[in-house]
Amino acid sequence: MASTSASAGVLLRHVRTGRARSRADLVALTGASRNTVSARVDQLISANLLEEGGRGWSTGGRPPTLLRFNSRAGCVLAVDLGVTSVDVAVTDLSAQILGTVGHPIDIADGPGPVLAEVDRLAQQVLAEVGLTPGDVCAVGVGVPGPVEFSTGRPSHPPIMPGWHDYPVPSAFGRYDCPVYVDNDVNVMALGEMGVAGSVQDVLVVKVGTGIGCGIIVDGRVYRGAQGSAGDIGHIHVAQPDGRTVVCRCGQDNCLEAIAGGGALLRDAVAAGLPVATVREVVRLAAQGDGVALGLVRDAGRTIGTVLASLVNFFNPHRIVMTGGVAQAGVPLLAGIREAVYRRSMPLAARALEVTVSEAPDLSGRVGAALMAIEEFLDEDSVQALAR
Amino acid sequence: MASTSASAGVLLRHVRTGRARSRADLVALTGASRNTVSARVDQLISANLLEEGGRGWSTGGRPPTLLRFNSRAGCVLAVDLGVTSVDVAVTDLSAQILGTVGHPIDIADGPGPVLAEVDRLAQQVLAEVGLTPGDVCAVGVGVPGPVEFSTGRPSHPPIMPGWHDYPVPSAFGRYDCPVYVDNDVNVMALGEMGVAGSVQDVLVVKVGTGIGCGIIVDGRVYRGAQGSAGDIGHIHVAQPDGRTVVCRCGQDNCLEAIAGGGALLRDAVAAGLPVATVREVVRLAAQGDGVALGLVRDAGRTIGTVLASLVNFFNPHRIVMTGGVAQAGVPLLAGIREAVYRRSMPLAARALEVTVSEAPDLSGRVGAALMAIEEFLDEDSVQALAR
Repeated sequence: MASTSASAGVLLRHVRTGRARSRADLVALTGASRNTVSARVDQLISANLLEEGGRGWSTGGRPPTLLRFNSRAGCVLAVDLGVTSVDVAVTDLSAQILGTVGHPIDIADGPGPVLAEVDRLAQQVLAEVGLTPGDVCAVGVGVPGPVEFSTGRPSHPPIMPGWHDYPVPSAFGRYDCPVYVDNDVNVMALGEMGVAGSVQDVLVVKVGTGIGCGIIVDGRVYRGAQGSAGDIGHIHVAQPDGRTVVCRCGQDNCLEAIAGGGALLRDAVAAGLPVATVREVVRLAAQGDGVALGLVRDAGRTIGTVLASLVNFFNPHRIVMTGGVAQAGVPLLAGIREAVYRRSMPLAARALEVTVSEAPDLSGRVGAALMAIEEFLDEDSVQALAR
Repeated sequence: MASTSASAGVLLRHVRTGRARSRADLVALTGASRNTVSARVDQLISANLLEEGGRGWSTGGRPPTLLRFNSRAGCVLAVDLGVTSVDVAVTDLSAQILGTVGHPIDIADGPGPVLAEVDRLAQQVLAEVGLTPGDVCAVGVGVPGPVEFSTGRPSHPPIMPGWHDYPVPSAFGRYDCPVYVDNDVNVMALGEMGVAGSVQDVLVVKVGTGIGCGIIVDGRVYRGAQGSAGDIGHIHVAQPDGRTVVCRCGQDNCLEAIAGGGALLRDAVAAGLPVATVREVVRLAAQGDGVALGLVRDAGRTIGTVLASLVNFFNPHRIVMTGGVAQAGVPLLAGIREAVYRRSMPLAARALEVTVSEAPDLSGRVGAALMAIEEFLDEDSVQALAR
């Protein structure tokens, strides 16, 4: 059924986002009748999602009773699944973290053992904050690979062996609530928006082992026709010296084969640096090692040539860099900015901000929570709840 | 003022798009009260935008009076301004063309003489269809260069000398109505959507003298932060042979300097073909000339390498090619498809359609009309009209 423009979900959204603070505001915003608004607000109050709190200023007549969103009406499980670790948080319905716990995992162990560990962590953190499975309204999960959003099944994820087509939501059967799964970059993009509180056109570019991009159009995740939008790691990059680098996908000279974390480590070892992980390369650069600095800056330049094209095409307000390699900060940004400002059209580059995430560790969990909250509090589910 | 979700404009849109056929439908769709809906429908009937027509089937009780949009309540002027010609059409409020007239111009003559000619053509076509300036509800204009949409002023348009910052809407002072101006590629993208009746994520790529792209997200034009989204003609393209081509923008190896119409003509002359215009090169290719075919296919391959990146990033449902060079059809498409399918990720390329516009001559006028109608029939202007 199509939801209406004065449904319980829409009314709730107006209050949650601060656009409405009273029944009269809701009548003015939606054009619905006073009776309709009152009946639905009463339903939302019964469902504990809205509460009455004090009186506003009168503009003539009886002062209105103020409404506010009860963000403690339930909680959300937010799961940030990485290649080598997982973080599970419990948040309220405003994505405020109430408790969080993390543990090392190996994603290649496959969905059975990994999701059993997630289940254990979720029970642990719920107990720590004094909540029960019955309090969980929704679950949000970010995973390091492509996902069919409508079913929550990973789709040929290159660095998640054994996970193809696995129904991730089935692992949360003990919670009688909806489960939303998306790739980590889309989830982090939502998290960055939540942290920054902005609703513009933004690209969130994650440079970890691979390279991916979350696209925010007007405050919402843009997914494209098959849900694969933002998959920029395999864009072809011409090498000035004619060098050919074969990517794990089988193509040559993909962006992540030249400038991703794996490539950075490979080049650092080839240059004789005493490193075994990309984290160590980033640390050496932070300590001012000239060779490491040069490699990070070169990676930035290569990423910048691709972003320059995307800036011409997409004309974003802002680009936020995140992921392990982005922790390198200044030298990476310098390379990116150099390429973007050199090759983008002046109009598109003029007001563009290119920054590093200010809360890289948080954005995965906050984003997973926001995804679950936004989807759960959409019109149909609240409609059902408020009946 | 923020418009409400049951404003006159919203009610009108529900009827125009076929979602509602009666007052009861509007009540169900918006959640507004029967009184509110009835009062606003009466205003729209007074304004001649809605009319009552017959009775629907009863589902118990008195059968409802059906409502329909009166697309002849007024007309729209649609102006498709090119570099060497202009077409002016009069359409009804469904973008049906009632009459149209075209004339050669030289855009470089500047806004004064060119817009005087547009004014003359508009008066001529209005008279031909028996309408007067008083019948015109809105004007839509597409121009071959970047435009600040909010003011209708071209912004440093490279192939429109003398037009920078000129207030195009001022040329339509004899019509007491709003004037909307956008670049020709955004307008053509809307026109392609109108012709195809689709509302998905689509790229409309125009290959004429220059190369530009209209971006449709979920049925609407996406403009980006400064309104320059889709400006793909100056994306840098590496040349396999290391050749450097300087673009009119001053940068080297821009997409349009290598694969635009001007480049095609330059390369055809250098190859010894007896041609003076890009149209002649396209005609030779259509006649099976091997050299011309090779050049068109090479241009397609180069455009395809850029589109392959954009397919990975944007994951569109469809790419529609338009503009003079797109008239070449098969050999251009073959080159584009080869590059796109070779370099895009399989998931994004799987269901992607790459086609040539089926109505390239119409889309500029239909798109200009649709832009004017959608903007004019938005909530605020109809609100004012229906007061």
